[in-house]
Amino acid sequence: MADPQPSAARLGARKSIATVSLSGPLSEKLTAIAAAGFDGVEIFENDLLGTVLSPEEIRARCADLGLAIDLYQPMRDVEAVPEDVFVRNLRRAERKFDVMRRLGADLLLVCSSVDPRALDDDALAAEQLHRLAGRAQEHGIRIAYEALAWGRHVDTYDHAWRIVEQAGHPALGTCLDSFHILSRGSEVSGIAAIPGEKIFFLQLADAPKMAMDVLQWSRHHRCFPGQGGLDVASVVQAAARTGYDGPLSLEVFNDVFRQADAARTAVDALRSLLVLEESAGLSEPPAPSLPTGFAFAELATPDTEPVRAVLDALGFARTGRHTSKPVELWEQGAARILLNSGAGSRRYGPALAAVGLETPDPAQAAHRAEALLAPVVPRRRAPVDAPLDAVAAPDGTELFFCRTGRPDHPSWTGDFEPAPATRHQAGHVERIDHVALTQPWHQFDEAVLFHRGVLGLTVHESLDLADPYGLFRSRAVAAPGGGVRLALNVAPGPGADGQMLQHIALATDDVIAAAREARARGAALLPIPANYYDDLAARHDLDPRLLDALRESGVLYDRDEHGEFLHCYTATVGRVFFELVQRTGGHQGYGALNAGIRLAAQYAHQHRP
Amino acid sequence: MADPQPSAARLGARKSIATVSLSGPLSEKLTAIAAAGFDGVEIFENDLLGTVLSPEEIRARCADLGLAIDLYQPMRDVEAVPEDVFVRNLRRAERKFDVMRRLGADLLLVCSSVDPRALDDDALAAEQLHRLAGRAQEHGIRIAYEALAWGRHVDTYDHAWRIVEQAGHPALGTCLDSFHILSRGSEVSGIAAIPGEKIFFLQLADAPKMAMDVLQWSRHHRCFPGQGGLDVASVVQAAARTGYDGPLSLEVFNDVFRQADAARTAVDALRSLLVLEESAGLSEPPAPSLPTGFAFAELATPDTEPVRAVLDALGFARTGRHTSKPVELWEQGAARILLNSGAGSRRYGPALAAVGLETPDPAQAAHRAEALLAPVVPRRRAPVDAPLDAVAAPDGTELFFCRTGRPDHPSWTGDFEPAPATRHQAGHVERIDHVALTQPWHQFDEAVLFHRGVLGLTVHESLDLADPYGLFRSRAVAAPGGGVRLALNVAPGPGADGQMLQHIALATDDVIAAAREARARGAALLPIPANYYDDLAARHDLDPRLLDALRESGVLYDRDEHGEFLHCYTATVGRVFFELVQRTGGHQGYGALNAGIRLAAQYAHQHRP
Repeated sequence: MADPQPSAARLGARKSIATVSLSGPLSEKLTAIAAAGFDGVEIFENDLLGTVLSPEEIRARCADLGLAIDLYQPMRDVEAVPEDVFVRNLRRAERKFDVMRRLGADLLLVCSSVDPRALDDDALAAEQLHRLAGRAQEHGIRIAYEALAWGRHVDTYDHAWRIVEQAGHPALGTCLDSFHILSRGSEVSGIAAIPGEKIFFLQLADAPKMAMDVLQWSRHHRCFPGQGGLDVASVVQAAARTGYDGPLSLEVFNDVFRQADAARTAVDALRSLLVLEESAGLSEPPAPSLPTGFAFAELATPDTEPVRAVLDALGFARTGRHTSKPVELWEQGAARILLNSGAGSRRYGPALAAVGLETPDPAQAAHRAEALLAPVVPRRRAPVDAPLDAVAAPDGTELFFCRTGRPDHPSWTGDFEPAPATRHQAGHVERIDHVALTQPWHQFDEAVLFHRGVLGLTVHESLDLADPYGLFRSRAVAAPGGGVRLALNVAPGPGADGQMLQHIALATDDVIAAAREARARGAALLPIPANYYDDLAARHDLDPRLLDALRESGVLYDRDEHGEFLHCYTATVGRVFFELVQRTGGHQGYGALNAGIRLAAQYAHQHRP
Repeated sequence: MADPQPSAARLGARKSIATVSLSGPLSEKLTAIAAAGFDGVEIFENDLLGTVLSPEEIRARCADLGLAIDLYQPMRDVEAVPEDVFVRNLRRAERKFDVMRRLGADLLLVCSSVDPRALDDDALAAEQLHRLAGRAQEHGIRIAYEALAWGRHVDTYDHAWRIVEQAGHPALGTCLDSFHILSRGSEVSGIAAIPGEKIFFLQLADAPKMAMDVLQWSRHHRCFPGQGGLDVASVVQAAARTGYDGPLSLEVFNDVFRQADAARTAVDALRSLLVLEESAGLSEPPAPSLPTGFAFAELATPDTEPVRAVLDALGFARTGRHTSKPVELWEQGAARILLNSGAGSRRYGPALAAVGLETPDPAQAAHRAEALLAPVVPRRRAPVDAPLDAVAAPDGTELFFCRTGRPDHPSWTGDFEPAPATRHQAGHVERIDHVALTQPWHQFDEAVLFHRGVLGLTVHESLDLADPYGLFRSRAVAAPGGGVRLALNVAPGPGADGQMLQHIALATDDVIAAAREARARGAALLPIPANYYDDLAARHDLDPRLLDALRESGVLYDRDEHGEFLHCYTATVGRVFFELVQRTGGHQGYGALNAGIRLAAQYAHQHRP
């Protein structure tokens, strides 16, 4: 029997996407769009012109894939022109109607004119659009008129609506586009004045807030809702309140998406609509079960020796061994590291493979993750393994939803038996403070939305950090209260992906002591240039004894109005290093100011003579 | 005996560059800067903080390399603050003076404050800068005060100068920065009011004209003079007229340069200063000898058979064979193609290796190229070869300066002996219309400046063209009159470099006939989708017979107010394809509107079932 429950993707409004939002030739785009679970597409004219598929073949392909053709777009520079020009425009429109008949599409997007010959004459625009709609109606086609933010005379949605209203033709309505509306700073409240049945289409795009020319901003920097800084939900809510019941459709021009894998981008796109519907209060996916802390971080490497040496020097003790897999448990305070020698790459050495998140309701968290299209990780279960729910983050890291050591829930620690003890010592490490993950170049915005949407984490400001070979972007996502913090880093470009490191930051009660003891136990800590401390002395009135201690122990220093952040680093093993941190007074940062020093020091250490 | 002539790079003013303009750790930057031929450097503080070299070691390194340390920078947020803050700032400055003493640097850049505590009080700013300069003077140090375009209260160069004037201290002067001046749209004429000896330093940067936040614009999009849209020469001229005789120093923050090879960027940087000095009328390198046409295009491939087949089908005849190298000459009209089977890559197939440019004075052209740091290509001469001057363009293409078949100059054609004739036919090809080259991702701006500066070509507008997997940029450079046109294309990102194709466009007197005949002779021409012609019919009132002929022959169509552009393409061989073009009425374009269609068709053709 088929599951009578519709898939999560099909709850709420119908969902569409413009073909221009994805990379590749049209046939690949359609396949990716259908596979992600969209209901329909906007066929972008350039995609049609560039394909060898005839309109009839595109129609058949879409039908096979279960995709409706919700819109054909765009037709430009139609209205408010001298009569002779308009007559030619009507002839052009007839050709488009013919293509649409062959496609089986019945809605045509007309953008407000940018033609220098266009007149600033609403009555003329309305009259000509009326005539256009009349012609369209003869073909069973409707026209959705949209204001481009850079239209010659019509550049706001309310202006476009006034013209549509004045034209008064049943086959003429308006198309709202969140980017055009919000980029101009238009009041969303005015949407209430438009009858829902006259909103023929709703296009959605977000964008990072940038003070730049709106045309360039639109053409290169749009992104999916929730990935930028625009309040796209307000547009969706306003349209919903008018009674609009057509599709929510994404139309995103983005230089990165143009190069990315279409199948992956399509899933990211649909997830953005699901999160958007929730934000707009139009759907209720399972609520997140917010993580409260790290259960563990798992490092995968066929050769565990180098990492064991670092953990040992940092004061960790091996406390357990998995009963059925080649995995060791190392602990110090509440920090737990798993060393998995059954996975990972011998060539690149240790890498972060998984993170366990303490989750009040693991099943609920997994349920939400699935509803928001997170890939569920097959449970690699041996008979005695505790059932652990896990999903794969965009960078491939597996996220496990755990409840460690609670009587009401099977604990993953039950799979470990006590191991022959390594030396135990009283260390300074209290718990995992944060984990820094490296995102593939294409997937930074996807990763941010994933962690926000799927896990319910809060997204912090995006920072540009300088390393010797480029800027990289870093953005923290954290649970309220700071029990879970993840730093999402992205390389400056595709070429640099492989150089990016991951790290595990360990909270200590005294980082200077921890660094000294680690060094005494043989840890290779990252040497920090003396020039850094000279500058630190210039910047802050530090107690000379503290300054000496920092210099001597190789600890970096940062502070803000809340408190201080002291931190140091181990040398890198494979793709991974450890950071020891100490926060005072509720400091919430990550030492961003020192990142350039750390990166230069890592480069120097790696290439040391 | 050493050459008594100073190198071209050292003619004119002294030339410096800020270390922040290049990638890598400080030691690599210094080596690259010296190797390119700069006289000095600005040491950027973050580069100093991140290096293990002590200030003394940096000083020694610079001395070894023959580089003066012209400036230490920046010191921020000093002036116009409450007294207690200023006292702390003076203490901070003392630490910087100490670093400078160790470096042997005697000029410190102070940027106008962005500190929220700074007061809008010129008198206070002047008084505090006076005190700072007094302290500096005790250490033999001078202060150059510069207005940041986003300074809190001081954001124009004339405002900074008024404060310096008011302060009236001999150790206090101003620093002019072309970006800060021009990005604010300040009048350059006001520079004349500043006595030359009070301009302590001159920083130069260009930037593409972008309507965006000036801080972001400055931090990410600066470029070397001549690579953007600012009139940097006007600032240099104005400063020179005041009697300023310090260095011309580049300070460029650029996301691409941060990732590029420092040695190469440093040469590009110095070339930009040489071209800038010439533009500003401050130096006279050898004048360009403007190319008047293409002498030849050379394809290198170990296996010439596939290209021979294409040339034969296009109506070319093999007319000559090199007397000492495995090179064939193919001709049609005035178009000449060399097929070199002694070079090239078997794996990637034919590629464009060289272009011959008809040059009125080849020796003069080579002399200029050398003066502007173009790499001179070793003459791969056999005893009978004509002496040909050649330089390597940034993409590796060799540019030969030729004078074909003139009695006053040895002609390269003299190295060829008549070859056993292939069939001759009356073809439609008249000459090479243009050549499209692919620039590595990092080197687009470098390439544009190279072709403008070294060859004297005129640079046309930059276009963004969509291919199925990303946007790429294309920019034409051409000789006046259109005898030589080069299209410089760049891939959207590092990953896509290898996919980019080169092509040779051949001017015909009748492209439809040429296409038909080529097809009849077995040429594989690129199939153009039928949808394209349906749209063409909608866009233009074309004679139906012309439309049918275009459709039937696979010829694309574009037009502007000057005339028409008709063109079609062969299938790709290796990295190369041919284009047949026909221009009417002085059309100067390259069919940019059709580039997306061509790229999609090439993708489809390459992946055809």
